[in-house]
Amino acid sequence: MAGDGEYERDRNYITTRITADGRDGYPVEPGRYRLVIARACPWANRAAIVRRLMGLEDVLSMGIAGPVHDERSWSFHLDPDGRDPVLGIERLQEAFFRRDPDYARGITVPAIVDVPTGAVVTNDFARITLDLGSQWTAHQRDGAPELYPEKWRDEIDDVAEKVYRDVNNGVYKCGFASGQEAYDKAYRRLWDRLEWLEERLGNRRYLVGDTITEADVRLFTTLVRFDAVYHGHFKCNRRKLTELPALWGYARDLFQTPGFGDTIDFEQIKTHYYVVHRDINPTGIVPLGPDPRNWLSAHGREELGGRPFGDGTAPGPPPASERVPPLGTG
Amino acid sequence: MAGDGEYERDRNYITTRITADGRDGYPVEPGRYRLVIARACPWANRAAIVRRLMGLEDVLSMGIAGPVHDERSWSFHLDPDGRDPVLGIERLQEAFFRRDPDYARGITVPAIVDVPTGAVVTNDFARITLDLGSQWTAHQRDGAPELYPEKWRDEIDDVAEKVYRDVNNGVYKCGFASGQEAYDKAYRRLWDRLEWLEERLGNRRYLVGDTITEADVRLFTTLVRFDAVYHGHFKCNRRKLTELPALWGYARDLFQTPGFGDTIDFEQIKTHYYVVHRDINPTGIVPLGPDPRNWLSAHGREELGGRPFGDGTAPGPPPASERVPPLGTG
Repeated sequence: MAGDGEYERDRNYITTRITADGRDGYPVEPGRYRLVIARACPWANRAAIVRRLMGLEDVLSMGIAGPVHDERSWSFHLDPDGRDPVLGIERLQEAFFRRDPDYARGITVPAIVDVPTGAVVTNDFARITLDLGSQWTAHQRDGAPELYPEKWRDEIDDVAEKVYRDVNNGVYKCGFASGQEAYDKAYRRLWDRLEWLEERLGNRRYLVGDTITEADVRLFTTLVRFDAVYHGHFKCNRRKLTELPALWGYARDLFQTPGFGDTIDFEQIKTHYYVVHRDINPTGIVPLGPDPRNWLSAHGREELGGRPFGDGTAPGPPPASERVPPLGTG
Repeated sequence: MAGDGEYERDRNYITTRITADGRDGYPVEPGRYRLVIARACPWANRAAIVRRLMGLEDVLSMGIAGPVHDERSWSFHLDPDGRDPVLGIERLQEAFFRRDPDYARGITVPAIVDVPTGAVVTNDFARITLDLGSQWTAHQRDGAPELYPEKWRDEIDDVAEKVYRDVNNGVYKCGFASGQEAYDKAYRRLWDRLEWLEERLGNRRYLVGDTITEADVRLFTTLVRFDAVYHGHFKCNRRKLTELPALWGYARDLFQTPGFGDTIDFEQIKTHYYVVHRDINPTGIVPLGPDPRNWLSAHGREELGGRPFGDGTAPGPPPASERVPPLGTG
């Protein structure tokens, strides 16, 4: 926390990269690595989506930490015997300690683990999705889209930086502010940015260009959690997402696109935030609402044109072992 | 608290009545009593509304406790020197102790205080509104409506009892549940009842008969707080009130009726709940949302017919000293 009660995210990640040329000692290799996510976490959600869009399910396996964790680590409490079936560990912390026995920073998802050594290679969420797109090309499915096209990079970077600061991280600055002033400031920045996005998306289908890009993936994972968690739990309550017509249409459009909604488990999302953050929800009670079935309603965004996957195609359904439950009733 | 984490309201009030015939020792008398409310409190809000509808402002003065209180008492922290200008006390508790030096129950609003002795006569909120309607008739304004007409009493009582159990008190059972099971149960009862009300109000303007009655006053004070407080703070979040077309139209119709919306101060409402309930909001941070200006939007309920005040008329504006601030921006 900064002195004025403002929440500051620790952005020191393990930045080793898995690349086609193996320059950091970790070459791209089918079956060698395991992506560890949690369905709850918006940062991990980005990696799960890009892995789906790229069709990397068979070459990069995925472990799923459960929604509840203690201060020290995410854990595999949803798996049989509470252990990840490939890594054999109960707590993600163990993989960080194999990388560095003195590791003292956050145990975060997404993390990519080198299966032979059991050590974390990287937890640098922003780099992970870019590298899944650019370094794993030899193993991507036919029709994998280009999420970070050369000609749009500056604009994607610009939009993504604004969205990161004011929205992705901005909701946390609202929720974890320890004083009214810090909260008020974060809330106003968040809503100024959401109004800006609402305007931008009023007459264009996607954030940059006319196809889905990294910028959309990054905004989506916050929007999809908005009404379920951030609106109430983090006090981001000027309006619900459902009350912002362009953003709500945009979010549903993406949700209904293969690779997006099929990574979302609202129960795990709500359980994580409301159970783990006892400092802002002391009872640990998880709200039953909202009813998420409206995510499947017609959005009408096709009328804006756009080519979701550019010259590529939509991915097929997720592997059976990775299917999320159908939407509940709230 | 009951054993299963369910919140139980202490319903033991001081039940002395102020009546036309003075049978309990407290006859109706202009200028003798002071109604103490807090703008925050839904139970007190009922009394403020009925006093307005009956036009009793000049015969029954009103003291306004501030939104913030400690565990022991509401206080007059909004008044000059922090004292009620008529009663001369800082804390409402003092008036309860003048009635009974050993008083050990809740210091609640609404309370009616006998000004000459400074002692609370009654804090029985359900009886207070009925008696303002039936016992103060000699001092009511011309055109004061009949809120509890003989021919509709059974139906008013029936609806009000359901609404009390599942909605007025039901939102508290959601918010103050100490366990998931008690919360889930209260949430389902609340939403079953709101769906029932949504259906009932789909083709009729008011809850009972074709005029405003006690049943409407009682439901209104919970609905008006719903999106500002109960939806997030009390986890009553299946939908916002704005997402229930009949109830939202009904609530706005009442809000825009003289005597209702002019008793509402959203800032005091939010401040009270979010600052006082540190057990469910440890930071005491008050959300900036939602934007309340939508309460003034067109509701179209006139089409359903109905005669808001029956054979009576609308009250005039409130006294200058009792005006609430205009709606903010959220």
